[in-house]
Amino acid sequence: MHTIQELQKFISDEIEKEVILLNESKPINLYGPIGYTLAMGGKRLRPVMVLLACNLFTDKIERAFPAALAIEVFHNFTLLHDDIMDQADMRRNSLAVHKKYNENIAILSGDAMSIMAYKYLEKSETENLGKMIRLFSDTALEVCEGQQFDMDFETRLNVSIPEYLNMIRLKTAVLLACSLKMGALAANAPERISDLLYVFGLDLGIAFQLRDDLLDVFADQVKFGKKIGGDIISNKKTFLLLKALELSDDLTKKELLEWIEKKEFDHQEKIEAVKKIYIKLNIKEITEKNIDNFYQSALNVWEEIEVPGETKTELLLLAKMIMSRDH
Amino acid sequence: MHTIQELQKFISDEIEKEVILLNESKPINLYGPIGYTLAMGGKRLRPVMVLLACNLFTDKIERAFPAALAIEVFHNFTLLHDDIMDQADMRRNSLAVHKKYNENIAILSGDAMSIMAYKYLEKSETENLGKMIRLFSDTALEVCEGQQFDMDFETRLNVSIPEYLNMIRLKTAVLLACSLKMGALAANAPERISDLLYVFGLDLGIAFQLRDDLLDVFADQVKFGKKIGGDIISNKKTFLLLKALELSDDLTKKELLEWIEKKEFDHQEKIEAVKKIYIKLNIKEITEKNIDNFYQSALNVWEEIEVPGETKTELLLLAKMIMSRDH
Repeated sequence: MHTIQELQKFISDEIEKEVILLNESKPINLYGPIGYTLAMGGKRLRPVMVLLACNLFTDKIERAFPAALAIEVFHNFTLLHDDIMDQADMRRNSLAVHKKYNENIAILSGDAMSIMAYKYLEKSETENLGKMIRLFSDTALEVCEGQQFDMDFETRLNVSIPEYLNMIRLKTAVLLACSLKMGALAANAPERISDLLYVFGLDLGIAFQLRDDLLDVFADQVKFGKKIGGDIISNKKTFLLLKALELSDDLTKKELLEWIEKKEFDHQEKIEAVKKIYIKLNIKEITEKNIDNFYQSALNVWEEIEVPGETKTELLLLAKMIMSRDH
Repeated sequence: MHTIQELQKFISDEIEKEVILLNESKPINLYGPIGYTLAMGGKRLRPVMVLLACNLFTDKIERAFPAALAIEVFHNFTLLHDDIMDQADMRRNSLAVHKKYNENIAILSGDAMSIMAYKYLEKSETENLGKMIRLFSDTALEVCEGQQFDMDFETRLNVSIPEYLNMIRLKTAVLLACSLKMGALAANAPERISDLLYVFGLDLGIAFQLRDDLLDVFADQVKFGKKIGGDIISNKKTFLLLKALELSDDLTKKELLEWIEKKEFDHQEKIEAVKKIYIKLNIKEITEKNIDNFYQSALNVWEEIEVPGETKTELLLLAKMIMSRDH
C-alpha cells in the first residue's frame, strides 16, 4: 500500500520521463509546448486518484500508469484550451502556452494532447481496455459540455442553482469520478466497487468546485497565492453569486446587479461591496453547508466501498486533503 | 457490391441522421456548430473509402458505418480548427464556424468533435476494435504533426522537397490510407491486404495533394470554383514553389524571391508573374510527372491486392476519380 505522497512521487517521475521524450520529439513546435505544459507541475490530483484507486485492489500500481498519464494529459489539454478561451495569460506562475508560443500553436498542441491522452490509455494492459476507453470518451465529452455551459452562463443572469450544479458536475466532477473508476478498472476491480468509486468521486468533485468558488472570496490571502476576488471582478456565475441573487431582497439585488453591470470600477471597491452583500446574506455559511452536504454524501458512499481497511483509509485521507485545501 | 455513388448516398444518409440528433442536443452552442459543420457537405471522400474498403470483403457495409462516421467527423474537426488558424472566413461557400459563431465556440466544438470521432469508432462491432482505435490515434496525431510542419514552413524558404513530401504524407495522405485500412479492419480482412490498402491509400494521398497544389495554379477557372492562385498570393510552400526555387537560376530565383517578399502588390500581377516563372521552368510537367509516379506506385500496389475482380475494379475507379478531379 502506498501513501498519497508516494503516489504523487511515482506519477511525477513518470511525467518527467514523458517530458524528456516530448522535448526531443518533432515537430518541436507541436511537442515542445506539450512538454512545457506537463512540466508546469500542479498537484497531480487526478493521476494520484487513478493510482490510489488501483492500489485499493492491487500493489501493481504500474498497471494504472497509462490511465493516470492519459487523465493528466487530458486535464492539461483542457486547461491549455481554456486559457485561450478565457484569454488568461498566466498558468501556475508561468506564461500560458498561447502567450509563450502563439494561439495557433496552442490550439494545435492542445488538439494533439487530446489524442495523446488516448494513446497513453491504449497502452493499458487489461481486459477492461474497451470499458476504459468508453468511460474516457464519455467523460471527455461531458467536460466539453460543462465548459460550453460555463461559457453560456457568462451572458446569462437567470442561471438556476440546479443548472449551476449540473455545469460543475460536467466541467469538474466527472473527471475526478472518472479518475477513480479508471484506476479501479485498470486493476480489474469488481464492477460494483468501480461504480461506487465513481459516485464517491462525483460528490467529492462537486464539493471541490464549490470550495473553489468559496476560496475565491473568503480564502486567506497569504495562503491563497493568487488574487482574491477574481470571480467577482469578472462577474463569474459562481454558486455564491447565484445564491446571493436568489436570496437577496429587491434593494440588495439592485445593488448587486448595479455592480455586475458597471463597466468601470475600482477593483478593490467592487470586491469589498459584493463581499459585504455575501456576508449580509450568509452566503459563506450557506455555501459551506452545501459543500458539507456533498462531502457527507461522499462519505456515505465511502462506507459502502468494500476494500481492506488500510487502503480504504488512504482514500479517506485523499478526500480530506481535497476538502481542506486553502489554495 | 456497391458503386461509389451508392456508398456516397449511404454515408450522406447516415450523416444526415446524425445532424438531426446533433441539432437537438444540448448545450446547443456546442452541438449546433458540429451539426452545422457536418451538414456543409463535401465529397465525403474519406468515409466512402472506408465503406468501399469494407465492401471489398463483405456486403455488410453497415459494419463500417461507425468507422466511416468517425473518420468524417475527425476530418471535419481538422478543417474547423484549420480555419481558425488560417483565419479563413469561408468553408464550402458557407461561413466558417469561428465566423458564424465565435472563436471560442469553434475551438470547443472542434475539441468535442475530436472526442466524438472516438465515440463513433467505439460503436464498431468487431474483434479488431483495439487495432482500429490504435490506428485512428496514430493517424490523428500524425495529422496534427503534418499541420504543424505546414505552419512551420510558412516562415521558412529552405524547405526541401523530401521535407515537403513528408509534410503532405502526414497532413493529408495518412488519413486516406487510414480510411481504407479502417474499412478493411471493420470487415475483419486479412492483415496483409489491410496493410496493402494502407500503402495504396498513402501513395494516392500524396498524388492527391500534389494535384491540389497543381490545380491552384493551372486549373480551369470555370470548373475550379474558387479563385485560382490563392497559394501564390499567400506564398504557400507548395510543391510547385519549392521545385521552382530548386530549379531556377540566380536571376529567376531573385525575381521569385522578390515577389515572395513584396508586402504590397496587385494580386493578378503576382499570380501572372509567378505562373510565368513556373511555365518557364516546366514546373507543370515536372509536377505532373511526380503525380504520375505516385499514382503508378499506387497502381502497382493495387495489382497485389487479392480480392474478387468486380469489387477491386471499384477501388480502381475511386483512384481514377480522385486523380481526375478538376476542383
